[in-house]
Amino acid sequence: MSSHLEDVVRRALAEDLGSAGDITTMATVGEDKMARARLVSRAEGTLAGLETVKWVFALLDDEIECGLIVADGDRVGSGAVLAEISGPARGILTGERTALNLLGHLSGIATATADLVGRVEGTGARILDTRKTTPNLRALEKHAVRMGGGVNHRFGLFDAVLVKDNHIAASGGLTAALRGVRDRVGHTVRVEVEVDTLDQLDELLTLDADAVLLDNMDPDTLSRAIKLIDGRLITEASGNITADTVRQISETGVDYISSGWITHSAPALDVTLEIED
Amino acid sequence: MSSHLEDVVRRALAEDLGSAGDITTMATVGEDKMARARLVSRAEGTLAGLETVKWVFALLDDEIECGLIVADGDRVGSGAVLAEISGPARGILTGERTALNLLGHLSGIATATADLVGRVEGTGARILDTRKTTPNLRALEKHAVRMGGGVNHRFGLFDAVLVKDNHIAASGGLTAALRGVRDRVGHTVRVEVEVDTLDQLDELLTLDADAVLLDNMDPDTLSRAIKLIDGRLITEASGNITADTVRQISETGVDYISSGWITHSAPALDVTLEIED
Amino acid sequence: MSSHLEDVVRRALAEDLGSAGDITTMATVGEDKMARARLVSRAEGTLAGLETVKWVFALLDDEIECGLIVADGDRVGSGAVLAEISGPARGILTGERTALNLLGHLSGIATATADLVGRVEGTGARILDTRKTTPNLRALEKHAVRMGGGVNHRFGLFDAVLVKDNHIAASGGLTAALRGVRDRVGHTVRVEVEVDTLDQLDELLTLDADAVLLDNMDPDTLSRAIKLIDGRLITEASGNITADTVRQISETGVDYISSGWITHSAPALDVTLEIED
Amino acid sequence: MSSHLEDVVRRALAEDLGSAGDITTMATVGEDKMARARLVSRAEGTLAGLETVKWVFALLDDEIECGLIVADGDRVGSGAVLAEISGPARGILTGERTALNLLGHLSGIATATADLVGRVEGTGARILDTRKTTPNLRALEKHAVRMGGGVNHRFGLFDAVLVKDNHIAASGGLTAALRGVRDRVGHTVRVEVEVDTLDQLDELLTLDADAVLLDNMDPDTLSRAIKLIDGRLITEASGNITADTVRQISETGVDYISSGWITHSAPALDVTLEIED
Amino acid sequence: MSSHLEDVVRRALAEDLGSAGDITTMATVGEDKMARARLVSRAEGTLAGLETVKWVFALLDDEIECGLIVADGDRVGSGAVLAEISGPARGILTGERTALNLLGHLSGIATATADLVGRVEGTGARILDTRKTTPNLRALEKHAVRMGGGVNHRFGLFDAVLVKDNHIAASGGLTAALRGVRDRVGHTVRVEVEVDTLDQLDELLTLDADAVLLDNMDPDTLSRAIKLIDGRLITEASGNITADTVRQISETGVDYISSGWITHSAPALDVTLEIED
Amino acid sequence: MSSHLEDVVRRALAEDLGSAGDITTMATVGEDKMARARLVSRAEGTLAGLETVKWVFALLDDEIECGLIVADGDRVGSGAVLAEISGPARGILTGERTALNLLGHLSGIATATADLVGRVEGTGARILDTRKTTPNLRALEKHAVRMGGGVNHRFGLFDAVLVKDNHIAASGGLTAALRGVRDRVGHTVRVEVEVDTLDQLDELLTLDADAVLLDNMDPDTLSRAIKLIDGRLITEASGNITADTVRQISETGVDYISSGWITHSAPALDVTLEIED
Repeated sequence: MSSHLEDVVRRALAEDLGSAGDITTMATVGEDKMARARLVSRAEGTLAGLETVKWVFALLDDEIECGLIVADGDRVGSGAVLAEISGPARGILTGERTALNLLGHLSGIATATADLVGRVEGTGARILDTRKTTPNLRALEKHAVRMGGGVNHRFGLFDAVLVKDNHIAASGGLTAALRGVRDRVGHTVRVEVEVDTLDQLDELLTLDADAVLLDNMDPDTLSRAIKLIDGRLITEASGNITADTVRQISETGVDYISSGWITHSAPALDVTLEIED
Repeated sequence: MSSHLEDVVRRALAEDLGSAGDITTMATVGEDKMARARLVSRAEGTLAGLETVKWVFALLDDEIECGLIVADGDRVGSGAVLAEISGPARGILTGERTALNLLGHLSGIATATADLVGRVEGTGARILDTRKTTPNLRALEKHAVRMGGGVNHRFGLFDAVLVKDNHIAASGGLTAALRGVRDRVGHTVRVEVEVDTLDQLDELLTLDADAVLLDNMDPDTLSRAIKLIDGRLITEASGNITADTVRQISETGVDYISSGWITHSAPALDVTLEIED
Repeated sequence: MSSHLEDVVRRALAEDLGSAGDITTMATVGEDKMARARLVSRAEGTLAGLETVKWVFALLDDEIECGLIVADGDRVGSGAVLAEISGPARGILTGERTALNLLGHLSGIATATADLVGRVEGTGARILDTRKTTPNLRALEKHAVRMGGGVNHRFGLFDAVLVKDNHIAASGGLTAALRGVRDRVGHTVRVEVEVDTLDQLDELLTLDADAVLLDNMDPDTLSRAIKLIDGRLITEASGNITADTVRQISETGVDYISSGWITHSAPALDVTLEIED
Repeated sequence: MSSHLEDVVRRALAEDLGSAGDITTMATVGEDKMARARLVSRAEGTLAGLETVKWVFALLDDEIECGLIVADGDRVGSGAVLAEISGPARGILTGERTALNLLGHLSGIATATADLVGRVEGTGARILDTRKTTPNLRALEKHAVRMGGGVNHRFGLFDAVLVKDNHIAASGGLTAALRGVRDRVGHTVRVEVEVDTLDQLDELLTLDADAVLLDNMDPDTLSRAIKLIDGRLITEASGNITADTVRQISETGVDYISSGWITHSAPALDVTLEIED
Repeated sequence: MSSHLEDVVRRALAEDLGSAGDITTMATVGEDKMARARLVSRAEGTLAGLETVKWVFALLDDEIECGLIVADGDRVGSGAVLAEISGPARGILTGERTALNLLGHLSGIATATADLVGRVEGTGARILDTRKTTPNLRALEKHAVRMGGGVNHRFGLFDAVLVKDNHIAASGGLTAALRGVRDRVGHTVRVEVEVDTLDQLDELLTLDADAVLLDNMDPDTLSRAIKLIDGRLITEASGNITADTVRQISETGVDYISSGWITHSAPALDVTLEIED
Repeated sequence: MSSHLEDVVRRALAEDLGSAGDITTMATVGEDKMARARLVSRAEGTLAGLETVKWVFALLDDEIECGLIVADGDRVGSGAVLAEISGPARGILTGERTALNLLGHLSGIATATADLVGRVEGTGARILDTRKTTPNLRALEKHAVRMGGGVNHRFGLFDAVLVKDNHIAASGGLTAALRGVRDRVGHTVRVEVEVDTLDQLDELLTLDADAVLLDNMDPDTLSRAIKLIDGRLITEASGNITADTVRQISETGVDYISSGWITHSAPALDVTLEIED
């Protein structure tokens, strides 16, 4: 994945530097000035994105050393030192914000995921992400979800079939929608179908699918759906999953619970860079 | 900005489509099938990003019509219809998630900004954004801040001078840091300096700067700083600005209050696309 | 997929035009000269890539009309007229070779695929492609395979798990290789494993996989493998599949037969552009 | 050429990795696992593209060593070891297919070229390629032709003038087509003209050209054309050149024989990567 | 060439707009404001680049009409109206500088070329450009040279052979340098060799070359060289060609005279955009 | 800025190499041949762009050593050795022209700037550049201006507000144009306004602006304007600034004098690369 990661970091730096570069640092800090800095967390959380921090500084100046002290997936407390960075001061100062933006954003997602994962512990249910990610950062965000203990749903429209309510509406019903799907896609692709009611589920159980997305069902209905399915399909629950409701849903026996919130609304983890005196 | 916007949308679509495309839609919906859909808000909020929605569908299929009913900057309630979209069903279904991701993300930022703007109403203080934005989406996020009633701080390291604590540390003190800045940068660039204490502020007032960033000061210290400055510098307060504290800070008479939270941690606005029967 | 297709055609034109452009046409044909041409097949075959022909001329000059007479997937004989093209002569002459290169290459793949598909008719076996494609043209080549009646295997390393002999060797055996795979990948991803012997197959049948790639087995061994599996796994045969052997292999009852030859070695279909007098 | 080559390899890897990367290898092989592998030919042939193999592994992991044992242009037998590769197992497994695809494709072209070159040995005729190349791979394919002992025709529409039948038709005849060509193009550019009949050749010999493309002539007509030209023009024969006919054509005394088949239809050379135990 | 041209204009606009766009125009001019403007020359000169002006406005807003009154290659006097532009005022103001930069730069080159062409009139010598062009603008600058009546030398290192003093030095002499050149390059490529003395010329006349670059010779030596060559090679004179010396050089009977000055040092033509009241 | 610089150099090399590469050097110079060369100035001037020279050779072959003897901003005489370059001869010869083109172009700008800077010495006036730069090279050209002792005006339309005559015309007058500008742009952005007459200046002095561009005023009018302003605005003079007029203008007491000529019309500095025997 490193080539994709490098590309994202390059763009992020280009966005911040424009063609004129970091005019403050060039005007205030001498070219030969060296510095040491520590990357520090100011809150408790689960980390993701430390590799992006390395890329930021590597792309700015290959004389900057960036030694990681922790790794993606680690749980740290407030005040934890995450990395030690040393080398030409200009590059360190120029890269600071881009590095913190990436690390804070991705660790925020890992932390939010880890919270949900903790809440369903022991039930066997797994936390899934969705395609509700930040445009142009999906692969990194899905990595962050894994670091928080979650599992990835499909990466895009291209790598799995998920027949949703709008497909069913546009094709004239569930049976019509599923007709021909198996022929059109290869044997490596699983077919998942969204249902909103037990009636739709009944119809689906007569058709050829691998998984079902049980959307917006209350815990009781969900429990009845799981019983009805009886292991014949992989089950996924979605719709307004919150920290308050996720435990109850996980206890229905559902296999996966997907949450858009962990990627589109998780607050950033508070991280900072401290220049040493 | 439209060329930049087009580029962001192109990338977002490419990320979702890969080279294989939307295999679900191609397998379930006929090429000639037409559809009508409504873009609907499921929460109260301030909108930003409607232009990205238009680009999503325009890039997928130029036969899709996307008629906007509201405009960026508008305040809408839950249930409001934002746009009507009609045309080939495949393109509408393929673009749905990318459009919602962009609109939800940007409207979340506009809504968070509008909330802070409302809280400081009448004090004369303006809400500023920061460089704590999502990598590769800064220009769109800054647009969203403006739509929420905020004002943009610099777009990157290239378009203004902001001498921060780390620059001062790396250059050996405030006076050393500012020496030569004016010569290095053109006359169109303002010079702003971060100070953490009143002592630093005293030193700054003897030097050549245009604005001061008063970082992490409690309201009392901030009030004393504003009095000390007495209109000689543009003033900006930053550091842990929250919905709870922003009003008190605005009442100190500070010109600008900057918040990273509105861009890095605002939850997405809940928007959806409803296919009509 | 059209945005990907447009990108491939843009690159192909840029490769042929350089920055100097088509110096022959600019020197010999007047800017206002109009022309009519017919795209003609000079051999029997199955077509793929007609959309690329449209893109070639659309990108060169939007005044060129390109009316398709047949469609991708159609079977045509030698001499068949595939499209009628009319408009400014310069653009038609400049695009001719790029259009023919794309159409000939992709139709060659469709034709080779259709040949194998025809040979296994009635057995229930499906013809699969592989990742043995021409670099930078995979998505178009996989489209060509579908047009020839084949089915697509995974699009890349990213969208399905296929544990091959080298993975097993590098991880210390089949059981070790499979341990943890299910946790690492999402529920939409199928896990396929390559086995070369019946002993390996025995081991695999005790593990958690969805499909098996039976590599380089002679028809007898393959038949025994299929019986052993008894429907518990999706089966795929690979290894030196030729026009001569494919029928015998398909009669073993295997679900899929994959061929690298149809993408890496199929000769181009002979197509030409005839300018009308 | 290395920057172009790097670009082609980057794209090929991106095509195979998507944004999710090699999920099989990440799930089955430990990050610290080291491996040794040998690149082996499974058929007799002439090599081209070994430099692309080095780029594949260099771009994936700069700790992978790739020691070439043979060089582009070398003739090898079945079983020949072409390179030894060692380092982190993940990168080696991830790059395997892309490396083999590039090497097999280009070596297939070199082998096909070498075959034609061998057949015309002693006659003085040289084998030329055409613009009938695989879109986006032309420069590499032309390199492969040179490695097989062939000579390159023009690289694109931009670097030489070749007035073909369609140009002559569109400009109203041979004399009209050639009028002004010399003025429009620089003195470094040669002008070649296609003729199909001896009558056209007679007309051409009265005009200002440097070379003639004698298209689709049978050996007798070709011989008469060569005599008629009598060294005044460089001569090139084209049109349905096959292994069976190329010798007879070369014996007419023609200077160059061009073949589209060697680039658009040559089967890939069978190469493989063997992980050592 | 239009795709290359579009690309250059896109980049130029992106360079000027950044991601924030034209903040002055957005802040001062209403979205619905329409305007009419005239593109005017403020000096006498030969035009090149009018097509870039059309692209600038087309890319910014497709509602802007840009009607050209003159064409590339035309000679105009001071005050001449070159184009009339009308439509949304924002796009016209935003594109003004980029359009003028391109047109002024390219017309400056055309004008400088036309000046040299005029000075050699009647001698039969042609004015050539060189590779001494502005990085990333070569194709447009070579177009400007043609518009000024000049002829293009090679477009790059890729499309012709020019063996210069440094090649001869690095390969151990003229004869050594030329050995094998003909085999390495195709029959469409001309071979030109630089010589600085008549002794080198003597040596060259015994070898296989198509053209000679007579570098830095005074008019007398040049005349003797031309006599010595006696039509056996195409001749090109180069080295400190100025308006003062070019006539004398042209009268030696040399075929081509190449000038770096017309591309690397020609002053821009003064053009302006006048908004009508 | 190095990433931007690398990108410019990459493009410049790609433009010169095409996909076929440097066919002359590949045909005449052995792969193992080593060479030493000296970069030499053939005129007196101020240098800019030495870093681009390093990038050219670094990108072509990382075994080439390029040791700089002087630095950007240095003043050198004719014959001065600027750098010593050694390593594989092929890369040195291939990069020669691109390196010289960049260095000559940028040093030409630095030299022209230094000339103007010298002429205004002692007056306190500073020389500014404009947006009249070569498309796609603005950032490098602005660097060259700094190296010549000049100061940069804004980098583009995005980083400062400059309200020009056309904006005023399009918005219906100066007061209307300025209304709302301060609200629309952030506090880091200065607002500059162009005025052509003293009447306009009177109006401007009643409004909220930071700087004034006094366009095309004769020295007397300019002096009166400066007195009228009396330090309340930063002052910039523009319009037909030449070596002859710049001193007189600088003596009016104006703060800045901007010149388009130094970027759009400065002749290249004559630099060369000498291969050592």
